[in-house]
This record gives sequence, structure tokens and C-alpha cells, in this order.
Amino acid sequence: MQKEQLFATLSEALAASDKRAIRAELEHMHAADFALAVDEFDAPLAAKLLDLLSLPDHADVFGYLDPQNQADIAESMPRNELAALFSQMESDERADLFNQLSKEQQQALLPGLAQAEREDVRKLASYPEKTAGAMMSSDYATLRSHWTVRKALQRLRLEAPDKETIYQTYVIDGDRHLVGTISLRELILSNPERLVSDIMLTEVLFVRVDEDQEDVSEKIRHYDLLALPVLDTAERLVGICTYDDAMDAVVEEATEDAQKSGSVAALDSTMDKVGKWELYRKRIGWLILLVFGSLLSGAGIAHYEAVIESHVALVFFMPLLVGSGGNAGSQAAALMVRALATGEVELKDWLGVLGREVLVAGGLGLTMGAVVASLGWFRGGPEIALVVTMAMICVVMAGSLIGLSLPFLLSRINLDPATASGPLVTTIVDATGMVIYLGFASFVLGLPIP
Amino acid sequence: MQKEQLFATLSEALAASDKRAIRAELEHMHAADFALAVDEFDAPLAAKLLDLLSLPDHADVFGYLDPQNQADIAESMPRNELAALFSQMESDERADLFNQLSKEQQQALLPGLAQAEREDVRKLASYPEKTAGAMMSSDYATLRSHWTVRKALQRLRLEAPDKETIYQTYVIDGDRHLVGTISLRELILSNPERLVSDIMLTEVLFVRVDEDQEDVSEKIRHYDLLALPVLDTAERLVGICTYDDAMDAVVEEATEDAQKSGSVAALDSTMDKVGKWELYRKRIGWLILLVFGSLLSGAGIAHYEAVIESHVALVFFMPLLVGSGGNAGSQAAALMVRALATGEVELKDWLGVLGREVLVAGGLGLTMGAVVASLGWFRGGPEIALVVTMAMICVVMAGSLIGLSLPFLLSRINLDPATASGPLVTTIVDATGMVIYLGFASFVLGLPIP
Repeated sequence: MQKEQLFATLSEALAASDKRAIRAELEHMHAADFALAVDEFDAPLAAKLLDLLSLPDHADVFGYLDPQNQADIAESMPRNELAALFSQMESDERADLFNQLSKEQQQALLPGLAQAEREDVRKLASYPEKTAGAMMSSDYATLRSHWTVRKALQRLRLEAPDKETIYQTYVIDGDRHLVGTISLRELILSNPERLVSDIMLTEVLFVRVDEDQEDVSEKIRHYDLLALPVLDTAERLVGICTYDDAMDAVVEEATEDAQKSGSVAALDSTMDKVGKWELYRKRIGWLILLVFGSLLSGAGIAHYEAVIESHVALVFFMPLLVGSGGNAGSQAAALMVRALATGEVELKDWLGVLGREVLVAGGLGLTMGAVVASLGWFRGGPEIALVVTMAMICVVMAGSLIGLSLPFLLSRINLDPATASGPLVTTIVDATGMVIYLGFASFVLGLPIP
Repeated sequence: MQKEQLFATLSEALAASDKRAIRAELEHMHAADFALAVDEFDAPLAAKLLDLLSLPDHADVFGYLDPQNQADIAESMPRNELAALFSQMESDERADLFNQLSKEQQQALLPGLAQAEREDVRKLASYPEKTAGAMMSSDYATLRSHWTVRKALQRLRLEAPDKETIYQTYVIDGDRHLVGTISLRELILSNPERLVSDIMLTEVLFVRVDEDQEDVSEKIRHYDLLALPVLDTAERLVGICTYDDAMDAVVEEATEDAQKSGSVAALDSTMDKVGKWELYRKRIGWLILLVFGSLLSGAGIAHYEAVIESHVALVFFMPLLVGSGGNAGSQAAALMVRALATGEVELKDWLGVLGREVLVAGGLGLTMGAVVASLGWFRGGPEIALVVTMAMICVVMAGSLIGLSLPFLLSRINLDPATASGPLVTTIVDATGMVIYLGFASFVLGLPIP
């Protein structure tokens, strides 16, 4: 609601080039909300609109825009304005934007930046996506161990405006090796004459530049940290990852896993902005791949065609049996995929959870068998009832154990366990269930096994 | 690895009642990691172990234990020790623990607490689960608007040891109404003689006690906040929700949604600790419910039994067609469930995304139709090829549109859209697909529609 209203107000003000009205809106609202409305404008208009803000406000709002929009707007900005914006942006956001620009734009932009900024952008933009290096900010505050608390606080006051956080600071030696950490809370509680080395914590948690963003976020969450220092291969401090970026990463990873659980390749855009072509591309691959899985079920049916022809009533129970196996398998897979993602369960726990699952699946199978026994009797007589009940117990157990094991198996061969999606499990379990069901049927109904 | 090793070391030290050895371990490790090993002990032993720590360390480690273990350990602690522990714990963790205790324990514990603590525990424990009230801490720092910055900093120094955070503080009037907020960064950058009222932000973001924890977390994430103040119905400040609790809530909600996406009712415990009986209970309900869905597919089959009997080759393609529809539906549902959960898409966007999906699903259907056309020809001749191709296009489109719409439909009637799980979508789409497929077949193969 608010967004639509703001969009209308801004459109009007922009048409009238009413700088004052636009600035007044931002005055009493958070930049993140202002950005939501700016995201609705086409790039050239958005660029014009942002140009009417003060440079710090411009940079602030810009940082909250959709990454794709940032790149589009940057494209329609004069080179010198873009350079000015760059120097106002936070280091990690700046590097992300840089990576979104075309090669030509990157080349055109770099000469316009101050040398230190240029090197910072180049370095931060060079780390692979989804690593600590790509996630980190280079705007962190450092102290030296021989400083007094008084001097440390003085320096922090000077540096505060340019740093992402001054609440957690890092103590380094002459080679930028990390020797300690100290919080602002501890600093202001300490006697100003004490040395930083006396009050700093020397056992510092850290991550490496190439560590996965998932692990970084999990560490920040597990230890309730504000920020986590990042070291390069030479053990030098090169950046910090902050809790707000960790939280974004957690949401991003959960979205990816949810998409994979539905057999969709991870999308590059959000669902409100994604294009038809991207949606098609990210879905068709799995759909076609799963066709070949379904052919296995078909092959099972072809193999037992004689049994089916002589007892067409068997077809009636196919969706029920095969479906139940797939459902039990999807349950087990969903539980395991998430447990592996959160670290509640690890690869080495496979046997343990498998043992538990045998009992749980046995219980589920017996219950489900009881449910379908009477259905089978009613619809096809005692023999069909026997087939259906026995098949149900086996199919539910087989489905559960396959669904539980698949994520571990994928993880074992270094694939993402989230790929053990419902559709994949369903397809595999369907084929297995079909063979179990028709195998039982041809055995019990006394026909020779073909 | 580390955990198992620590467990062994602690077991030994505990057997020898070696207090020094136990404290030495905690000395160079984070309480969160120490807690992981303590979680492995049986409650009475864990209680004994914790008893060998200093009280502040005890409270610190205790706060990181598994909630169920906290309750078990509390049960085996003498009443006065538990009361001492309570007064050292953080207010939000304390309230959560209180809610885990039995009625008798709660009654036994309360008289041992100081009056202020008793009221704080009672109040915080009274809010319903998963609301801002249940999530919040009452250990926040407040300032008055007429104070100077110097006085504000002095007060913060005094209060710092007992507050969850002093980095964001809240300015209240005599009736505890929230009138502003100010960060420690701003305070230490300001002239000590200025008034708090001059530098505080007066547009403060806040939540109500009864707001959902999902909304609280999303606000903290959207605005990159350290903490969010919580107001009661009389507009009084009663607590703060902090970023670390928000991050835990985000993970908890994602886990619940992942479980629901596999048709498992949300578990109360983590997967490494959950019991067989709980797993059975949380899964059997959906499995049985879905049986009735599968019966619809069975009914479809029964209705067209004549066609099947005369063309058994049709059965071969059943898993392929019905499965593909289910897969396309699962994809669409997974995308929408997550987009609704993150707020990328809202209820009012239904028609818009449905329009896009018609085109995407059309493309998917045509591609899939082309894939199976030759299969149909090869296996059953031109007529079967026609049936299979036409049915595939329709089934994939129908599956996608049902999968996309189900989460919206559930959301519309105030149910959790995450319940539109893969298995539910698959079951509904299977029945639809079966009728489409056999309907086409009986039409094209020239048999009278029964």
C-alpha cells in the first residue's frame, strides 16, 4: 500500500522536478522503504529521481535497490556521477555492483576512482560468488595492541563514519595478522589508561576468504556474533562479514533449497521480477530428466502386462500404492535435506538415522497397510486385499528408506543434498513401488512370473 | 570431532571431580561449543558438570543448551541453585526455560526469585509462542530525552553488564512511551553537552507484542537493524527483539516450511534428537489423508476401465504423464510457497503470476509433448502418440496452474501456504492428470465415453 502511494507521489514530484518534495519524503522514512518505490521506476527515470537526492542519501537508497536495477541505473548514469556514487557506497555493495556492470563499463569506471578505492573494488570483486570474500566488507575498524583504551576510542571516533561497524573491532600487528578482538562495550567499560593488549580477547573466531557463505552465516548465528573477521591465505585480515549480510545469506540459501526441493534450478532473480524465459529454462531440464525416471515405472508395467491384463482391478490401486510410497519418501527426504542443511545431522549419522527410520517406516507401513486392506477386499476380494496390504507395507518402507538415503548419497558424492527433491524421490520410489506391487501381485495371484 | 573429544575430556574430569580441568577447557573456547558437549551428557551428570563452573559461566553455557535438556537439567537442580541460575540468565532465555518447567517446578521456583525477577519472568512467559512478546528480552537500555550525552554515556556504562545490547538504546518518557532511539555510535560521536533529545531519531520502527516472529525477523532483516523495540497495547516499551534471535527465528521458520513442503507436520525437536514416536505421529496424518486423494485417481481409472482393457499399452504411459504433471505442479508450488514466505509475492499478485505461468507452462507442455511424441509412436502407433502428446501438454499445463494456485488458495483462507506441499500437489494433480489422459484416450481411440 505504502509503496504504491509513495510511487505516485514520487512520480508527480519527478515530473515537476520538485527536488524539495522528493527529499521531504525520504526525510521521514527508512531508505529501505524508499528504495522499494524507486525499484518500480524504469532505470532512466530512477536515475533522474536519485539524482535529485543529496549524494549520501543517493548512495544510501541505491544500496537497497534490487541488484539488477542497480546495474541498469548505473548504465544510464554519466561516468563521473557513477564514480562519485561508488566512493560513497559501502565496500561490499560497491563490489557487488561492479560485478554486475559490463566489461566496458568496468573499464570506463575504474580510472574515475581514487587509487585506494580502485584497488579495493578490484580485490573485493575478484572473489567467487557465495564465498566469505564476496560477502565481506573492507570497511572494518582495526586497533593496535600497544594503544591505550583512550587512544583506541579516539581513533574509533575518527573512523566511525566510514566503518560498517565499530561495535566489534580487530587488533592487528604490523603485518595485518589478527592478534585479538575487542567490543566497544568492553572498551567504554575499561579504564582509559589500560592497554588494548590487556583487555582484548586473543582467541578470535574467523573464517577464510574462500569459505562458503553458508558456513559463514552458520558461524555468525551459532556464536551470536555481530561480525566475523575474514583472513586470506597468508593469515592477514582482509575483511569482515556482518550479521545483516549473514541474515540475507540465510534467507537466500533457504530460498535456493526450497526451489531445489521442487526440482527447480536456483533462480537468479526474485519471483516478483523473474522473466518467463528464465522460469522455463530453470524448470524444463529437471522435467525432461524425470521423464526418463518415469520410463522405469513404465518398464515395470510392461514387464507385468500379463498380470494387469488378467486383473485390471490392480490398476485401480496403482496410484494409491505408488503414491503412498512417494509421499513417505518425500517426507523422509524433506526432513533429511533440511537437517543436513542446518547441520542437525551430518554424513556420519547416516546409519543411525537409517536405523531409526526402519522402525518409523515400519510403523507407517503397517498403519497404511491396515488402511488399504479393507479397500482391497471390497474392490477385488481377499487375494487383491492381501496383495495390496503386503505391497503397501513394503512400498512405504522402501520409499522412506530411499527418501532418507538419497540426500546422504548425494552429499557423499559432493552434490547438494537439496537436489534430493520431492519430484526426484517420487520418481525413483514410483518405479520401485511399481515393481514391488506388480511383483507381489503376480506371485500371489498365482501367475507365472514373466 | 571437537565435540566428541571435548565430551571425553569432560567425562574424565567429571569422574575425578576435577573442577580446574573443566574450567580450563571453557577458558579457551566459546560457551556455544562447550554447550554442544554438555548436551551429550545425561541430565543429572550435566547438572553436576555445570555445577563445577562459576555461576556466570554456568548461566552462559546453560543458555546455549538444547531447550529440552535445559528443562531436564533444571529438574535435577536444587531449588535454590535453580533460582540463582535464573537470576543470572538473560531475560528471554529465562522465560523460555520457565515455560518448559512443570507446573510444580514453576510454583516451587517463583518464591526463590527476587520480586522484580519474578514479575519479569511471569510477564515474559505469558506471551504466546512465536510472537514478538515471546521472542523479546526485557534487558534493554533506556535513556531520557532531557539527559545530556555525557549523562547518557555514564548511565550506559553502569547498565552495560546487565543489558543484552547497549549499541541501540531507546528514549522513553515518564509513562514508558517510546519517543526516540539513538545508537551508541551516534552518542560517542556527539558533543557530551548536547541533549539526547537533540540527536535522537524520532521516527522509530517498532513492533507490537502480539506480532508474529516471522514479521519481526523480516523487519529486522529488511532494515538491517540490531534490535527492534516492542510496544504493548498501551504503547509502552516492554522489550526488544535482537538480530541474533531474529536469525534463529528465520532458520526455525525455514525448517518448518521445509518440513511442511514434505507433508510433515512441524517437529518440536531437531532431527538429531527427535524420537521415533514423534516422527511417526507427525507423518502418519498426512499419509492417510493423501490416501483419499489417491483414491480419486483410482476412481478415474475405474471410470475408464473399458478403454484400459482394450488398450493396455495406455498403462505404460500412466506414470510418465501423471508424473510429469505432478512434477510441473511441484515446481510451481515450491516457487510460490517460498515467494509468499519471503514476501516477494503477495496474495494480490495471484492473477499476475498466473498469467505468466500460463505462458511458461505452455512452453513446458509443448516441449514435454515433443519429447513423448516419438515414444508414443514407437510403443503404440500414431493414435497412442496423438493421445500421449495432447495429454502431456494439457497435464503439464494443468499441473502447473494447480501447483501455482494452491498456495494462494490456502493463503486466501488463512491457512499456511507451505501446506501446499509437493505430495499434496502431486496427489491432486495425479487425479486431474489421470482423468485428462484417459479422457483423451477414450475420445481419440473412438470408444464411447463411458
